[in-house]
Amino acid sequence: MFDFENSVQFAEKDLDLLTVGELLVDMISEDYGVSFENGTYHRYFGGSPANIAMNTKRLGIRPLVASAVGSDGLGQFLLEHLSRSGMDTSCVQQVDEATSLVVVTKSKSTPVPIFYRGADYRLAYTEELRTALLRTKIVHFSCWPLSRQPVRSAVEQVIRDARQNGTLVCFDPNYHPALWEKGEDGIEYIKSILPLVDIAKPSEDDAERLFGKDTPENQLQRFLDLGVKLVILTLGKDGALVSNGRETVKLETLATQVTDTTGAGDAFWSGFYAALVKGYPVRRALKFGLAVSAYKLQYTGAVVELPALETFQEKYPI
Amino acid sequence: MFDFENSVQFAEKDLDLLTVGELLVDMISEDYGVSFENGTYHRYFGGSPANIAMNTKRLGIRPLVASAVGSDGLGQFLLEHLSRSGMDTSCVQQVDEATSLVVVTKSKSTPVPIFYRGADYRLAYTEELRTALLRTKIVHFSCWPLSRQPVRSAVEQVIRDARQNGTLVCFDPNYHPALWEKGEDGIEYIKSILPLVDIAKPSEDDAERLFGKDTPENQLQRFLDLGVKLVILTLGKDGALVSNGRETVKLETLATQVTDTTGAGDAFWSGFYAALVKGYPVRRALKFGLAVSAYKLQYTGAVVELPALETFQEKYPI
Repeated sequence: MFDFENSVQFAEKDLDLLTVGELLVDMISEDYGVSFENGTYHRYFGGSPANIAMNTKRLGIRPLVASAVGSDGLGQFLLEHLSRSGMDTSCVQQVDEATSLVVVTKSKSTPVPIFYRGADYRLAYTEELRTALLRTKIVHFSCWPLSRQPVRSAVEQVIRDARQNGTLVCFDPNYHPALWEKGEDGIEYIKSILPLVDIAKPSEDDAERLFGKDTPENQLQRFLDLGVKLVILTLGKDGALVSNGRETVKLETLATQVTDTTGAGDAFWSGFYAALVKGYPVRRALKFGLAVSAYKLQYTGAVVELPALETFQEKYPI
Repeated sequence: MFDFENSVQFAEKDLDLLTVGELLVDMISEDYGVSFENGTYHRYFGGSPANIAMNTKRLGIRPLVASAVGSDGLGQFLLEHLSRSGMDTSCVQQVDEATSLVVVTKSKSTPVPIFYRGADYRLAYTEELRTALLRTKIVHFSCWPLSRQPVRSAVEQVIRDARQNGTLVCFDPNYHPALWEKGEDGIEYIKSILPLVDIAKPSEDDAERLFGKDTPENQLQRFLDLGVKLVILTLGKDGALVSNGRETVKLETLATQVTDTTGAGDAFWSGFYAALVKGYPVRRALKFGLAVSAYKLQYTGAVVELPALETFQEKYPI
């Protein structure tokens, strides 16, 4: 289905990307620390699919966010932040649960977040969401909304309808046991979803959590064996290993300066999607993803001010 | 049962007060505001029963806190804060849920908190809790742990065992619909609990939420009619109206300076409990409550450094 030297052919649609899932507040400590000894926290707009949507708007394509926030002050903050960024909020549902929140200590190693699930898991498959899905070329989601009902059912319906309509189904298999409904095997569930996915972008950690420790090549093969058509295994400073099942390509990182890794994966997705939609061949779209990720790595924060996609060709060897 | 001029006779026990219920983190905005436009928040130790226990320790009696926190960084912070204050943490259970959290904007009017219930509602009636209950003279709880299962069952068991053992059952009927399990009539439930309670301390707002708007005298009577033996209706700057069913006493506030009302109700409970345990007659114990509340009102924060109970007689007309 995916050829590295060809672009992806999309039907004519008036939306390019629909991201479905978590829209939430990140409460991040002011100071670095390993525990929660910090007394001061800053409140940030968060949620990986929402960040991807905002990034791609800056890169120059037409995204839409589908999520649920609470009818409370933090939900209002998220809605206003989206509006101020020029995003359409018509698919953000307001529900009678607290706006989802993540509390985390700023960390130079791997932070241990505390998850407060609320409104985000109440996303419903509404008529507005169904209509948006029919209007888009690509649909994107992560493990977060699959980890709990009733939002899981909504995403399953999204996947079914997307496949019927020839929409590209893209999935971030960022499985984390802390997020998963207690008493259920999240790994088995993710493996049952992968056959329905066109493109997946696991990190090495994601792959290890799902399949155990193994070589990058073997991890790639596991995703392919389950039916994923294009697998992008990110390797941090070692770039990415990508396979379409017939050919495997190794791409080097384009990063020269690493200030903050938060949101680097979302930046990759964003550059990749924007380039696919703009008709670049798959191999170049992957390089755009690496370039946008490299750009973001220079700055602190999950979402940074990105220039138009085309300018990345001047700054990076794409 | 309660005579204003007599002290309460307690059996000999090695604990004076067991508080059962919420132990949580308050995330309070740095700046005043009506919404959540604030970007900076400070993390505080919170939960009314835990604050009462800490206050009474400073006043000179022997309290114990029974609650549940998460096995996470915020739970660790709460446990360390208790330990540093010299509190026994043996009845603080650590469970596999996020430590409960309240996010609120600092406000000069009535703030609208967002509740993130987690570990606190998982408190179980363990052997440790049963043993602590048998060791104490007074048990205290609020509406919070009654608002959701499974902690509600634990508190119901606490009430049953307390009544069998002649332990004084004290209840803060601080009913709030936002906290209550959806689809259930919290008001009817609270009314079913009041007949099992010896002492209740509603504010005028609490009484109005439970019984509708009415005169203070009629509100008092409603609690008495349901079987509460001593009702302390607090009236803010107008002091308190207290009835034992035979006699009603009006007590004036002892506050001269109001800097921050947070925790003023908990300070009242604390002074009242400490004085009851130390053998003061009920009327004087109520005045000690008002004095400790007046003292706290001068300072910012839910918990302030309190001197020993006896010193309040020098500062206030008790």
